[in-house]
Amino acid sequence: MKRIAIYPGSFDPVTNGHINLIKRAARHFDKVIVAVAKDSQKKPLFTIEERIDMLKEVTKDIEGVEVDSFEGLLVDYVKRKGAKVVLRGLRAVSDFEYEFQMAHMNHKLFEEMETFFMVTGAEEFFISSNLVKEVARLHGCVKGLVPEYVRQKLAEKFGKGSE
Amino acid sequence: MKRIAIYPGSFDPVTNGHINLIKRAARHFDKVIVAVAKDSQKKPLFTIEERIDMLKEVTKDIEGVEVDSFEGLLVDYVKRKGAKVVLRGLRAVSDFEYEFQMAHMNHKLFEEMETFFMVTGAEEFFISSNLVKEVARLHGCVKGLVPEYVRQKLAEKFGKGSE
Amino acid sequence: MKRIAIYPGSFDPVTNGHINLIKRAARHFDKVIVAVAKDSQKKPLFTIEERIDMLKEVTKDIEGVEVDSFEGLLVDYVKRKGAKVVLRGLRAVSDFEYEFQMAHMNHKLFEEMETFFMVTGAEEFFISSNLVKEVARLHGCVKGLVPEYVRQKLAEKFGKGSE
Amino acid sequence: MKRIAIYPGSFDPVTNGHINLIKRAARHFDKVIVAVAKDSQKKPLFTIEERIDMLKEVTKDIEGVEVDSFEGLLVDYVKRKGAKVVLRGLRAVSDFEYEFQMAHMNHKLFEEMETFFMVTGAEEFFISSNLVKEVARLHGCVKGLVPEYVRQKLAEKFGKGSE
Amino acid sequence: MKRIAIYPGSFDPVTNGHINLIKRAARHFDKVIVAVAKDSQKKPLFTIEERIDMLKEVTKDIEGVEVDSFEGLLVDYVKRKGAKVVLRGLRAVSDFEYEFQMAHMNHKLFEEMETFFMVTGAEEFFISSNLVKEVARLHGCVKGLVPEYVRQKLAEKFGKGSE
Amino acid sequence: MKRIAIYPGSFDPVTNGHINLIKRAARHFDKVIVAVAKDSQKKPLFTIEERIDMLKEVTKDIEGVEVDSFEGLLVDYVKRKGAKVVLRGLRAVSDFEYEFQMAHMNHKLFEEMETFFMVTGAEEFFISSNLVKEVARLHGCVKGLVPEYVRQKLAEKFGKGSE
Repeated sequence: MKRIAIYPGSFDPVTNGHINLIKRAARHFDKVIVAVAKDSQKKPLFTIEERIDMLKEVTKDIEGVEVDSFEGLLVDYVKRKGAKVVLRGLRAVSDFEYEFQMAHMNHKLFEEMETFFMVTGAEEFFISSNLVKEVARLHGCVKGLVPEYVRQKLAEKFGKGSE
Repeated sequence: MKRIAIYPGSFDPVTNGHINLIKRAARHFDKVIVAVAKDSQKKPLFTIEERIDMLKEVTKDIEGVEVDSFEGLLVDYVKRKGAKVVLRGLRAVSDFEYEFQMAHMNHKLFEEMETFFMVTGAEEFFISSNLVKEVARLHGCVKGLVPEYVRQKLAEKFGKGSE
Repeated sequence: MKRIAIYPGSFDPVTNGHINLIKRAARHFDKVIVAVAKDSQKKPLFTIEERIDMLKEVTKDIEGVEVDSFEGLLVDYVKRKGAKVVLRGLRAVSDFEYEFQMAHMNHKLFEEMETFFMVTGAEEFFISSNLVKEVARLHGCVKGLVPEYVRQKLAEKFGKGSE
Repeated sequence: MKRIAIYPGSFDPVTNGHINLIKRAARHFDKVIVAVAKDSQKKPLFTIEERIDMLKEVTKDIEGVEVDSFEGLLVDYVKRKGAKVVLRGLRAVSDFEYEFQMAHMNHKLFEEMETFFMVTGAEEFFISSNLVKEVARLHGCVKGLVPEYVRQKLAEKFGKGSE
Repeated sequence: MKRIAIYPGSFDPVTNGHINLIKRAARHFDKVIVAVAKDSQKKPLFTIEERIDMLKEVTKDIEGVEVDSFEGLLVDYVKRKGAKVVLRGLRAVSDFEYEFQMAHMNHKLFEEMETFFMVTGAEEFFISSNLVKEVARLHGCVKGLVPEYVRQKLAEKFGKGSE
Repeated sequence: MKRIAIYPGSFDPVTNGHINLIKRAARHFDKVIVAVAKDSQKKPLFTIEERIDMLKEVTKDIEGVEVDSFEGLLVDYVKRKGAKVVLRGLRAVSDFEYEFQMAHMNHKLFEEMETFFMVTGAEEFFISSNLVKEVARLHGCVKGLVPEYVRQKLAEKFGKGSE
């Protein structure tokens, strides 16, 4: 039986922190599905298609990784994919509490499913998609925070300042 | 002199976590007034009337509980009701810090008033009104998180999926 | 029926933070019993008798306060005293987590008992018995942190430096 | 070489907590520039001009303090001013984590720059601009939380209730 | 290739919280090795042999679980066992920070190894081995906190009170 | 007037995290005094002399750094040195709360003194002297955590394993 882990998130956009986690996760599962959540209530910077495109580009050399998107409850998506494991990165105490609630809720909704938390890489723990967007919006340099391909996409959104 | 405690909140909607706390509080005061805050700045899912209706329904068998609503400063409402005690549930560290600030501010505004914090029941600590709404919106099952009466009202708002 | 609240602790020694909380608690209960825990496993600076003596001295003008000591499980003591409420001060996040665990454990051991948490006064939130002892041990000034009577007892323990 | 520290923030409006920190900071630097951030994405209560006016009024007697505003990345502003130090107040754990991320990000963007964190005064730790606005909006008394000049400006915004 | 996860700890004694986690973990790995750490610096209540005996007894019906003990660095033990995954339970914020440090340190010492964190079950989150020992020491009832077999062993250590 | 900052601590032993902070601090003050606290109550691994020796060795190339030791209250030492600033590194939430209390206490004891907190470098945030000692005690590799000179001293204490 193949072991599949789902790594859900907004990835708006994918950062070096996400990529560090995806690489490490890929060593421990037969397949890691990076699943972009279609959430009608948030206003993302990038469309679902753009986010999937960036994820595919930056994970193309990591074996066993698939990029997908989903709508609705995470647990329903996990069931459809035949998976039993969800992966989440933990960075800070505030992350922790929200993730805790979600993990318990998801366990209640689908008892066989388990959430495994992984710690963010030490060098990436201060990187979040929101902070990256904020820096890019104000034309700061985001090299080292996101892959080059993502940096270019941010520059297209915010103008040449973020180069 | 009757001992009155005010339990203020949004209750949008009331969850099993709130009910657990109301039941425990009712043992220690002559009257517990569950007070729905009319806050013009948030966009609730349920109207004040709906929230009061649900609270009345699910607390009707708990002796010494009254359901009410208020506008404006909590301390002014507490004074009007002749109460000296406010009750708040504590679930997480982030709750804690905000509640801490509020308790100090309220103490400054009305020195004789005291905020007593109670811990959320162990089985309910991962339940929040926001998470319940999110699950119901995505048509997940909310049994065990809210009373049956509230589950039905959520199903009416979001369609048959949340049954 | 008289409403009795138990305020347990080490009180090694009592600080202005404890006294602030006792004063506020005394307004909301018929009797507040300040209960010094005899814990054979810690090495206190002051004996049980000295701690009781200091507590009696500094609370003598607060109406409705009684000073006592207890051994064994808190819930057993609470039952013996005919009380249903335990009071605890909350100062910091680390306090909070330990207190949370204790409150749940005690609730499990004696379901009718409730722990009410009160926030430490803003001016006292940085005072702990341990920090006071540390400052006194190094002959720092503890005025404003503990009552005059306690300051003298600390000076007797550590020499004239703490005057 | 003059030692300049930048104290950036929204100051919407300045509170006694900010003023406590500005006074203490002014003792340790040749110049402290209080820098109001022009952030096009938040909806402030007071305009940049009003916030600068209030800051100038309430800091006019503190030597070595200058009031200014800036747009764009903080690090660019710091460079333009010839400064190497940014000051931030720390109040709570949630502050701490966000500030941590920002400090690392800013260090990455401008390596010679350092963020020094100062603790909020004990009596002001429960005061935030948001809580002050909330109390004033509901016509609560904000004496002791903000200087008299700011209290008047809040009363003008929200009507005579906040007097 | 068999997938092996190591679940290290003191287990002094094993609680219902540990067992909940072991059961959930056993579903996701071919083998889960519960590994009692021989730490010469702590003074445990139960000997290594007693702790292993209790663990074997209470996990005998969970398929794929092995009980073992180790000395020295965890990463060396993990290598010897041919494992790449370490499991840890997360309960509270203070846990979280220490575990974070350990996970980074272990990752540095053995890069291919990954720590997966699982949340404690909602009903067990207030149970810790230390709290259980404390309650048993004071002759409180530990039913529901530890398996019956462990309860008896605690009663033998502390006398008939903990029955 | 020279600006002097005191950086107090146990430094048992100095780690790369401390050195990162010392280097950054040295850019902002005329002199940074690294002050080893002689605390009779803790049992350090290295003597005061050994700790001073290691600190001198590893900071010898950082301009403006002096190594010293002190006994008694920090504020008294700060006064004797003619300093007004104390520096502390912040790594985690638990650090934060203890440091908060200390900073307020020290401010009360010596009002003109200020504590400036600096964030630990991203790559060093998981390094603590205690964790380093633990790894070295178990003969793990501490390269990258402490300077080579300190690694040798640890190896002398714990045997060749830590090479």
